[in-house]
Amino acid sequence: MSIKPILYQNGKCRMIDQRLLPAREEWRNYDDYRGIAEAIRTMVIRGAPAIGVAAAFGAAFGARDIEAAGFEEFYRKLEAICSVLAATRPTAVNLFWALERVKRFARHHREIPLSSIREGLLELAVKMADEDERTNRALARHGNTLISRRARILTHCNAGALATAGYGTALGVIRAAFESGKEISVYADETRPWLQGARLTAWELQRDGIPTTLICDNMAGHLMARGEVDCVIVGADRIAANGDTANKIGTYTLAVLCKEHHLPFYVAAPLSTIDYDLADGSLIPIEERGREEVIRHGGVELAPAGIAVRNPAFDVTPARLITAIITEAGIIRGNRSGDFLDPLKPFQKKNVADD
Amino acid sequence: MSIKPILYQNGKCRMIDQRLLPAREEWRNYDDYRGIAEAIRTMVIRGAPAIGVAAAFGAAFGARDIEAAGFEEFYRKLEAICSVLAATRPTAVNLFWALERVKRFARHHREIPLSSIREGLLELAVKMADEDERTNRALARHGNTLISRRARILTHCNAGALATAGYGTALGVIRAAFESGKEISVYADETRPWLQGARLTAWELQRDGIPTTLICDNMAGHLMARGEVDCVIVGADRIAANGDTANKIGTYTLAVLCKEHHLPFYVAAPLSTIDYDLADGSLIPIEERGREEVIRHGGVELAPAGIAVRNPAFDVTPARLITAIITEAGIIRGNRSGDFLDPLKPFQKKNVADD
Repeated sequence: MSIKPILYQNGKCRMIDQRLLPAREEWRNYDDYRGIAEAIRTMVIRGAPAIGVAAAFGAAFGARDIEAAGFEEFYRKLEAICSVLAATRPTAVNLFWALERVKRFARHHREIPLSSIREGLLELAVKMADEDERTNRALARHGNTLISRRARILTHCNAGALATAGYGTALGVIRAAFESGKEISVYADETRPWLQGARLTAWELQRDGIPTTLICDNMAGHLMARGEVDCVIVGADRIAANGDTANKIGTYTLAVLCKEHHLPFYVAAPLSTIDYDLADGSLIPIEERGREEVIRHGGVELAPAGIAVRNPAFDVTPARLITAIITEAGIIRGNRSGDFLDPLKPFQKKNVADD
Repeated sequence: MSIKPILYQNGKCRMIDQRLLPAREEWRNYDDYRGIAEAIRTMVIRGAPAIGVAAAFGAAFGARDIEAAGFEEFYRKLEAICSVLAATRPTAVNLFWALERVKRFARHHREIPLSSIREGLLELAVKMADEDERTNRALARHGNTLISRRARILTHCNAGALATAGYGTALGVIRAAFESGKEISVYADETRPWLQGARLTAWELQRDGIPTTLICDNMAGHLMARGEVDCVIVGADRIAANGDTANKIGTYTLAVLCKEHHLPFYVAAPLSTIDYDLADGSLIPIEERGREEVIRHGGVELAPAGIAVRNPAFDVTPARLITAIITEAGIIRGNRSGDFLDPLKPFQKKNVADD
């Protein structure tokens, strides 16, 4: 039973503090939008699908506390709340997708009493969390068809239960393969500087009893050259309309290594990660985070004071390097000609229209 | 004036403790071969050329303390001492090359009094240190001809003054370019798990005022894709006869990235790093180091207890990915057909024959 990192209990949103894992399992309670915005910004919660769900709860709590005479005032204030939540992190599109869905829900129900809209927005957030886990289980079933019986799978960052409302995307595929009896094993890149792989992926796969070996990011090429890796699966923070994929820094390098070694490179992500508004990956904004993450860990200095630092948190893998994108609607194989995601467009629209 | 990490003063060998940099600059004194073997093993000193010089001092101190009735007994005991020094680290060939040179010197002078051999071995160690720095300055002059006026150079690990008896190999080329007035800048890979880049390269380039930006190992591909890197220069721990090169883990991945981005990939190393006894890189022994380096830093746990870890300290870059090897005898351009180092063979032999 994989962990759920974000829960709705007794009118509060509970999150496991991912900054403290694996040393400590501490849960935090939130019941206002500012607290949730801060939790996203400071990475108490992270992972594209998870921050989408967190933002929906933030907007619902914000809506609950809005004082307004009528819908127009309510909606103006809701938009302001959504702007605060949207300003927390720039790259993962699920955040903006979730907030768009919240606003669309409110507009769609403008004729019902405000109290009902408020209630509806909370139900929507709960629904989005449930939906996300179901989505992951569906994409994991599809993805499992790509995994051989004794696959040695390399993954980067944490596209796991902790990055979603449950089960995970890339780690969902790994879980599905393991649960179906395949004798898989996993190499987890530690994923500097935030160590999502060492701290989160290693922790959650170990909890589930899935054989996992931790490596430094710079070791993947060596293992591939020695024939010790069969495929790479990663998650995604934003996929452009042509299939170019933004994901955790280091992902692009793994895709280049897969090309060199003729290994399949898979991206596992829900349809909500696809941004049809962006023609290609060059348009995806890449977050640059602070120098502290690189030069210090746990209070220990790793570099000389005053040294210049670059800290891009994501990179873009061009569609031509992606063997397949695994979604809840099925597997789309790269055709290296761009726009290979077009067949998925109706599925993405259907999803949102349901609210 | 770049630092010299290993000095001979007042009958002792002094080394800066590279495990403590950049937080503390502590020097340690050694005057017996066991202490020096331990210093190499525990990485008080590291870097292929530097551990060659350290081993020569170790052998000289060992020889000084040998009690022997005649040359045969002396030589047998010297061989045992050299075996202890040789068993410290397996990959860098300069260590074995230096010890071979020590033994050859002793054999060559078997007819002179033991006291003179002892004195000669100490002089040889001092000479090898001086020679190493001169060698680096010569290869740096050659390498500088490959560097453009505003080159943005990426380097990995520490092939600097700290890895040699002074000036450095890859960082020697960078120093020569900077000293000749070129407006170069450097990206230093932090180089997990031991952080030679963050702790040592950043420190020594900062001391010399060379513009340096620290990045995590997984960021190099992203910077190359954005056109922010002009070339890569690294050192080497062992170069096989066909040009295949063992160097710090992660080097191979950089070479693959250079191929993908059509960037030159340079190896800078003294002739003593070439091992003509090995036909190709598959024969180079790769050291696997302990799990502690990966899962802990400065007493802070980075991963869940009990997780499996791989920690290969080196990888092998095939000759076909190397644009040129920069040595003190000149620049050899890769021809992708193997054996491109043959023209250097006479230079390597000449060097040793001089003792």
